[in-house]
Amino acid sequence: MKPAEFLAKPSQWLIGDGPEGNIVVSSRIRFARNIKCKPFPGWGKRNERLEVLHIVWPVVENLPQMHDALSVGMDSLGMLEKQLLVERHLISREHAAKSIGSAVVITPEQTLSIMINEEDHLRIQALLGGFQLQQVFSIINQADEYLEDKLDYAFSEQLGYLTACPTNVGTGMRASAMLHLPGLFMSEQIPKIINSVNKIGLAVRGIHGEGTEAMGNLFQVSNQTTLGESEEDILNHLQKVISQIIEHEKNARLSLLEKRLNFVHDTIGRAYGILLHCASINSKEALNLLSSIKLGLDCGFFPSHFRQFIDELFIEIQPAHLQKFFNTTKLNPQERDCLRAQFIRQKLSHLPPPSFLHSSNQPPPNPQNN
Amino acid sequence: MKPAEFLAKPSQWLIGDGPEGNIVVSSRIRFARNIKCKPFPGWGKRNERLEVLHIVWPVVENLPQMHDALSVGMDSLGMLEKQLLVERHLISREHAAKSIGSAVVITPEQTLSIMINEEDHLRIQALLGGFQLQQVFSIINQADEYLEDKLDYAFSEQLGYLTACPTNVGTGMRASAMLHLPGLFMSEQIPKIINSVNKIGLAVRGIHGEGTEAMGNLFQVSNQTTLGESEEDILNHLQKVISQIIEHEKNARLSLLEKRLNFVHDTIGRAYGILLHCASINSKEALNLLSSIKLGLDCGFFPSHFRQFIDELFIEIQPAHLQKFFNTTKLNPQERDCLRAQFIRQKLSHLPPPSFLHSSNQPPPNPQNN
Repeated sequence: MKPAEFLAKPSQWLIGDGPEGNIVVSSRIRFARNIKCKPFPGWGKRNERLEVLHIVWPVVENLPQMHDALSVGMDSLGMLEKQLLVERHLISREHAAKSIGSAVVITPEQTLSIMINEEDHLRIQALLGGFQLQQVFSIINQADEYLEDKLDYAFSEQLGYLTACPTNVGTGMRASAMLHLPGLFMSEQIPKIINSVNKIGLAVRGIHGEGTEAMGNLFQVSNQTTLGESEEDILNHLQKVISQIIEHEKNARLSLLEKRLNFVHDTIGRAYGILLHCASINSKEALNLLSSIKLGLDCGFFPSHFRQFIDELFIEIQPAHLQKFFNTTKLNPQERDCLRAQFIRQKLSHLPPPSFLHSSNQPPPNPQNN
Repeated sequence: MKPAEFLAKPSQWLIGDGPEGNIVVSSRIRFARNIKCKPFPGWGKRNERLEVLHIVWPVVENLPQMHDALSVGMDSLGMLEKQLLVERHLISREHAAKSIGSAVVITPEQTLSIMINEEDHLRIQALLGGFQLQQVFSIINQADEYLEDKLDYAFSEQLGYLTACPTNVGTGMRASAMLHLPGLFMSEQIPKIINSVNKIGLAVRGIHGEGTEAMGNLFQVSNQTTLGESEEDILNHLQKVISQIIEHEKNARLSLLEKRLNFVHDTIGRAYGILLHCASINSKEALNLLSSIKLGLDCGFFPSHFRQFIDELFIEIQPAHLQKFFNTTKLNPQERDCLRAQFIRQKLSHLPPPSFLHSSNQPPPNPQNN
């Protein structure tokens, strides 16, 4: 599949609700794998990286899931296409910076993505919407078993899979869920949650992984350790903790609706008002306001058929997606913020005001009669 | 006229546009006057204040302009009524705290207001919409000449009118204009303007005079000195300076529309979006957002027949006016902020979105074609 054709379709994980889809945006697992006796990409010379690429790429392309895949060398992708793949979480920022000697192969429904010569020879990633780490594990495990059968993985009986960075040695697995936590944010419980999660050996990160800021109340929770535990143990632990965070988020939302309903209404109403009437907006503010709209959907304040629309906007308002939509290459941040505002207004033009404002054309009630 | 009947009507200075009405909200002059050989209200005993009241009140009531006036002792007004008069700039905060021994007489159209036993025996105030200090001076001067004819004013050939506070001795006159300066605010020129105005002996204050904060981009510019200059000189000086500020504001608006149009659109669009969709808003934020809507009207982004509506909102969203509208007495700040949001939504429910957003249902233009 050509990049243009591939990128014209939305990622499947965005379509429809997965389990606990109101809180868990997506579940993701990646494996780091390397070929025995070949230098890691960061250490290898150009011809050594090319040699690994020539060994690995055809095998990856032959994976049964990779029928009709996007399969492309990083030297054949333009800056914009690379950035689009980053914004869809299909390649890493680091991989986007690679050129000749690196490649990526992604299934057409964008659920399984394999980077060749990123930090490791192979970075295999599977991604589904909602809370379904076990299903994601099945997908990635199936791909990994196929590849392990054809390729000679660097593996130590004592340590497990060997990786370029020691933090990945062992299982080479990083499993994560992207959580939408507006309730915990509005009730100021995020720092407490991050602190507790960190204490039990898990990491909490922003929307684009390591070293990125939390935006749109989206938090990625993942395992930190890869050594000394089985994949099953890691996943069980992670699932248990995420289930607890989901419960906390549900309780926070219930408590807000019960005790601070007007604050919730105000937050959602303002988000709606600004998104539909601003003339300029940056990514961060847009994501934060979309988070309030998403909460409004979960609370039933907006018609539910707008859900996919809103979920897609989280991706579509990012710089490369905007640039692609407007079919332009040269945009400074100011121009981009204007186009983003215009784009959001157009996209949301049919979204009605939140239902709790419907009384706005009625005379205000007399509080003495309440 | 009964207070309830009086307060049911809006102040005339709010209705229709005065000269330079886009920038000068109102022009106001007050005279401080005292009766010869009677102790100032702050020094006098209760029976001495009552004696002055009995001398002055009937004379004030007999002013030809005071036909059908509101004429009431401060002990007969409720807290809410007093606060309503303060919010309409018809009595001072200090006078609202007075009770027996003090009174106020106000013309039905609310243009001329005379406080008895405020800081001085007489505080005469005239108020008109727009930039018309000369007309205001005619009104107040006519009333003052009538009163001077019937009452024995404390006057020194050397100093002029004697007043309780030395800062008023001389003319006893404080003339001011309330200016709406969103252009200077948005182009960050307010501190520079305040500095220049202060240097030439004039004062710049917030919406409720001395010691109050600037809200809604409303600034009151007034003379500081009352001694050693004639009323005419003071007014000429003040008029000249205000004319210059008006020019600066006009230039700032033109420059913003020319060089930062999108910033102006964004500010006005967001103000519209928040005012029409928030569920809670305090006075200060509401005034600041209304200021942007008012600028939008001046720029032609809203239909002009909404002008009076918006101007009245500046008064109507204040605490006592809200309390009166909702016919309630017990409101904590949170409840008031909710009712304010509801009130504004209702009042503005027919205000269309700013005209520059009309394109929001069209597909966004391609910037390459621009």
